[in-house]
Amino acid sequence: MAAAIALARRGQARTAPNPNVGCILVREGRVVGRGWTQPGGRPHAEAMALAQAGDATRGATAYTSLEPCAHRSTRGPACTESLIAAGVARVVSAVADPDKRTNGAGFSELRANGIAVDSGLMAQEAKTAMAGWWFRETHGRPFVSLKLATSLDGCIALANGESRWITGEAARAHGHLERARANMVIVGRGTLDADAPRLDVRLPGLEDRSPRKGLLTHGAAPEGWEALASPHAISDLSGVDWILVEGGAATAAAFLRAGLVDRLLLYRAPITIGGGVASLGDLGLDRLDGAHGQWQRSDTRQLGSDTLDIYDRADKGL
Amino acid sequence: MAAAIALARRGQARTAPNPNVGCILVREGRVVGRGWTQPGGRPHAEAMALAQAGDATRGATAYTSLEPCAHRSTRGPACTESLIAAGVARVVSAVADPDKRTNGAGFSELRANGIAVDSGLMAQEAKTAMAGWWFRETHGRPFVSLKLATSLDGCIALANGESRWITGEAARAHGHLERARANMVIVGRGTLDADAPRLDVRLPGLEDRSPRKGLLTHGAAPEGWEALASPHAISDLSGVDWILVEGGAATAAAFLRAGLVDRLLLYRAPITIGGGVASLGDLGLDRLDGAHGQWQRSDTRQLGSDTLDIYDRADKGL
Repeated sequence: MAAAIALARRGQARTAPNPNVGCILVREGRVVGRGWTQPGGRPHAEAMALAQAGDATRGATAYTSLEPCAHRSTRGPACTESLIAAGVARVVSAVADPDKRTNGAGFSELRANGIAVDSGLMAQEAKTAMAGWWFRETHGRPFVSLKLATSLDGCIALANGESRWITGEAARAHGHLERARANMVIVGRGTLDADAPRLDVRLPGLEDRSPRKGLLTHGAAPEGWEALASPHAISDLSGVDWILVEGGAATAAAFLRAGLVDRLLLYRAPITIGGGVASLGDLGLDRLDGAHGQWQRSDTRQLGSDTLDIYDRADKGL
Repeated sequence: MAAAIALARRGQARTAPNPNVGCILVREGRVVGRGWTQPGGRPHAEAMALAQAGDATRGATAYTSLEPCAHRSTRGPACTESLIAAGVARVVSAVADPDKRTNGAGFSELRANGIAVDSGLMAQEAKTAMAGWWFRETHGRPFVSLKLATSLDGCIALANGESRWITGEAARAHGHLERARANMVIVGRGTLDADAPRLDVRLPGLEDRSPRKGLLTHGAAPEGWEALASPHAISDLSGVDWILVEGGAATAAAFLRAGLVDRLLLYRAPITIGGGVASLGDLGLDRLDGAHGQWQRSDTRQLGSDTLDIYDRADKGL
């Protein structure tokens, strides 16, 4: 299942409106097919894995990071039908599909056709891997990551505004990777005016993965940008399951105040700035009690001389 | 040697004006004596280990985190004499004593008496363990740690001044341990007036390890406090090899500007404050270029839900 979920991650931010699913087909202890939802949402992971396995599907076990879909579409057959037709003996899924059109119906149909079904293996990991789609299905909004790149004392720029560069090459490259994993990157008007950021993906081989550009503004957005009047406007975006908010401090604070940040990406360089620009604007906090218990660190890694700490909401919403 | 250095750390901030040294005596593959410099500086580590070994010193190897002293004192015999008299066969030291009264003379005397001598094993680790004394000997000033306890966005208090508590119990207990490892804790006038901190050690069994209290101020210090007119005044303190600066932002910045911070202790709670009090005052930095390359992370650990990152100066001065 861990391998299936790893495959699922390949589709992050590329499969809307479909979930990014991974599938591994195993027969007699050997992997005979690997699949993941393709860009645009089709083929599904199961279809890809079945095609790869060819004649070897008969009697195989399918590990899928999400319940196979039970609803036919004009774009292709239901995965349950395909699995049944291929003679798969067993299906192990991480989690049931919250989509009302499937939601257990996939499992029922498989069982009705003599296929053994198990569900619930690594459910949390699977939901995390498809958090964008999951949030859209269950909360009606995209999954939002907030990136902050700061000094040890939490500054995002010198007092004179200079911010290039606080973090080093490895951290900035990782930031570009996070853009490639998002459907939209959002900044505020101040950042647009000060830095004129391109917000594209400048990683070899991933140049075509640049996300859409959102601007938090009460005014109009320049060409190539989409205006968002408030953080809540992200719920109305079509084809956007994964959002990366890149700042500045006021925009970051606006999303936090709205309760619309699910993950913090804290890139931290081993420098002290002192008296610089703070990373977060006012959050309206007047008691420390209210600040505790909201975040927990889920990962930490060294990127060159910088550190990346990833914090998830304690109440993950998954 | 690692074990000898671990013993040396037991004497941190308790042995001035002597170095905190550790010693392990090994005979036929077994540890027969363990010693570390005792509070006040005597007995020396070697004397303690030799006494513990009793008759087992003959033919043993002594691992010492510092070259054994060659100078007699009114307070006791030189360690070289004691090691020779005890019939030790070999001495392995981490580093030569920079004190002019010994500085290689210990090794020479041991060799002249037929004892095999090696030096240089884990020298950096040994110097780090006795950094306070080492700095006093080689730089004429104490070793200075700066503690910052912040939110994820680098704030040490809410905008309204509330700062109790940002970090949790485990992190605060560790902060008390760091006090026990210092000869003096220093804060600024603002912190004194706002928080009236006791700056004592409230850990069971370590209550008697509370350090002296320094106040960075142009004025007078209240009773129980010692006034420091500037960060450079730390060089004139007697009996102070290890200093812990606990803030606030202006005091922290004053020590950083003076180039008098050797180690950063960054306690970080998983909370966002936003628009709060920054951890560092103005450092007079007008270009980012000048900020890079000064710090490197030497340790990181989880303390409850908080994180402690320790950064050392890239140019350690050791």
